[in-house]
Amino acid sequence: MARLKSVLIHTSIGLSLLLCSFIGAVAQTEPLPSWNETAPKKSIIAFVEKVTKKGTPDFVPVDRRIATFDNDGTLWVEQPIYVQLAFIFDRVRELAPKHPDWKTTQPFKAVLDGDMKVVAATGEKGLMELMAATHSGLTVDQFHRVVASWLATARHPKFNRPYNECVYQPMVELLNYLRANGFKTYIVSGGGVEFMRPWTEKAYGIPPEQVVGSSIKTKFETVDGKPDLMRLPDINFIDDKEGKPIAINQFIGERPIAAFGNSDGDQQMLEWTDAREGPRLILLVHHTDADREYSYDRQSSFGKLDKALDEANVGGWTVVNMKNDWNRIFIFEK
Amino acid sequence: MARLKSVLIHTSIGLSLLLCSFIGAVAQTEPLPSWNETAPKKSIIAFVEKVTKKGTPDFVPVDRRIATFDNDGTLWVEQPIYVQLAFIFDRVRELAPKHPDWKTTQPFKAVLDGDMKVVAATGEKGLMELMAATHSGLTVDQFHRVVASWLATARHPKFNRPYNECVYQPMVELLNYLRANGFKTYIVSGGGVEFMRPWTEKAYGIPPEQVVGSSIKTKFETVDGKPDLMRLPDINFIDDKEGKPIAINQFIGERPIAAFGNSDGDQQMLEWTDAREGPRLILLVHHTDADREYSYDRQSSFGKLDKALDEANVGGWTVVNMKNDWNRIFIFEK
Repeated sequence: MARLKSVLIHTSIGLSLLLCSFIGAVAQTEPLPSWNETAPKKSIIAFVEKVTKKGTPDFVPVDRRIATFDNDGTLWVEQPIYVQLAFIFDRVRELAPKHPDWKTTQPFKAVLDGDMKVVAATGEKGLMELMAATHSGLTVDQFHRVVASWLATARHPKFNRPYNECVYQPMVELLNYLRANGFKTYIVSGGGVEFMRPWTEKAYGIPPEQVVGSSIKTKFETVDGKPDLMRLPDINFIDDKEGKPIAINQFIGERPIAAFGNSDGDQQMLEWTDAREGPRLILLVHHTDADREYSYDRQSSFGKLDKALDEANVGGWTVVNMKNDWNRIFIFEK
Repeated sequence: MARLKSVLIHTSIGLSLLLCSFIGAVAQTEPLPSWNETAPKKSIIAFVEKVTKKGTPDFVPVDRRIATFDNDGTLWVEQPIYVQLAFIFDRVRELAPKHPDWKTTQPFKAVLDGDMKVVAATGEKGLMELMAATHSGLTVDQFHRVVASWLATARHPKFNRPYNECVYQPMVELLNYLRANGFKTYIVSGGGVEFMRPWTEKAYGIPPEQVVGSSIKTKFETVDGKPDLMRLPDINFIDDKEGKPIAINQFIGERPIAAFGNSDGDQQMLEWTDAREGPRLILLVHHTDADREYSYDRQSSFGKLDKALDEANVGGWTVVNMKNDWNRIFIFEK
């Protein structure tokens, strides 16, 4: 009996290995189909093949294969305004009946009047007031439900699709390709962490615990007789620029070997990743396709790409020219 | 050829399943061998069997099986003083030659004199000064190396072993048992996150990104010509009491289904976990074995267990009586 078990196990291990190689071969037939056969696709594949080749100096063990992705403009659309800003504006309109004073108080009046110039003129202070009024006073779970129900009805003004479908197909393929090669994929975004967590697993295959973002403070308190977490109107952390490497270290505890962004807000994360010893992949998405998506960089109010683009050119980072390098933009395209 | 592949694959899948069941059977023969056949072991196994049984109302999908563990006194020893405090004192002595003023300045003088009463009398302010002087002014990587080299030489005063061997064997078995059943295991500790990350993977199988703890601030700056993270002498977050559920939400984004602690510092984490809908396991380790380890609870300076013990008795939480429920305490015992 023991001998039979031993034979079965050895046969099974052999066949399992065969099965694994076969599955591997199938998965490898066509990685990144929405990427054209241009330089960025080639650098991605060369990098992944390099770090996964055992017995070479560039080999990176599975538990060190950390990849971090910005979200706005890197994984989903960030024009004509950040999605979270669209959420804030809609939520001000929704909550306005309970706040009659908003009709006469800035920055709320400007949002209700649809006067974006005046909203912009209230600056960071105005934005923080809007954040506080629309993002706090709810438990964490209640806020998740508000986000989910907004996403179910709101539509992107250009593409007339739910925002969580305005996701870049080539980047979803890249996330899958990296994960198939043992990478752990993280979002590291300036956006609110609780604004992302309700939908990132479905959209990107990234679970809540792998989403790092900006946050407001929470308070442990009793709500409806049960211990819960209440969202407060105070900023806890802004996960942008220098904040990105700081948050990566705090949340992940390790420098990534691959980092992906699209704006100056990602520059420090990319620099810090680039400064590690050993192989690394640094990639910027450059929005160059006004027809299929948007075209913007150095002058944009949202997702400004200026200094990081200069650094990419000097430092040899991979730059995706969306128009030339992607044959498909969105997941909803056929 | 296609037919051959198909046959091979189907045979292989069948045998793989057989192999998996066989490995499963072996792993299940004796879970938690260092736990006596008393109530705590039975509640753990009953809970795990319940949440992993498909098609029942208590079934929890793999990606929701989050378990959080306190560290000091739950996974490793915290007497006669917290390990990190022993590290701080050793580091003050090591750095003293570069700081001649410490000979006459509190709280440093008291540490150098070995006068713990005076150290204690300097209170939280004194402790913060000691933290700042010993934990900052280094990059994150440099600090990791300092911790690792201290652990390589420091010895626990009672057990004469490296501190990272003064780890509870039953809890290591519990971590392994939970992971074998699809749980993701996290540390959520009042200890410094960067003090734990260098050694938790080897000791507990918990990788850096699953360690949540207290932290000091860091600054993104250029060190030796490269972008790096410098540790600052300012507290960022204290991951204790109310801080634990707040940090779990911030880092993991999800309420655990199982939480493990040993002191009043864990009470809010346990309460918050207990307040979730559906099955959950709440467990307290009660240190009752003065011979094999230590015996302490309501009056202890380190790991005080008072209110949480009352709440455990009222709320039906599982309480481990170390003396009765564990037949082996440390990983170094034979």
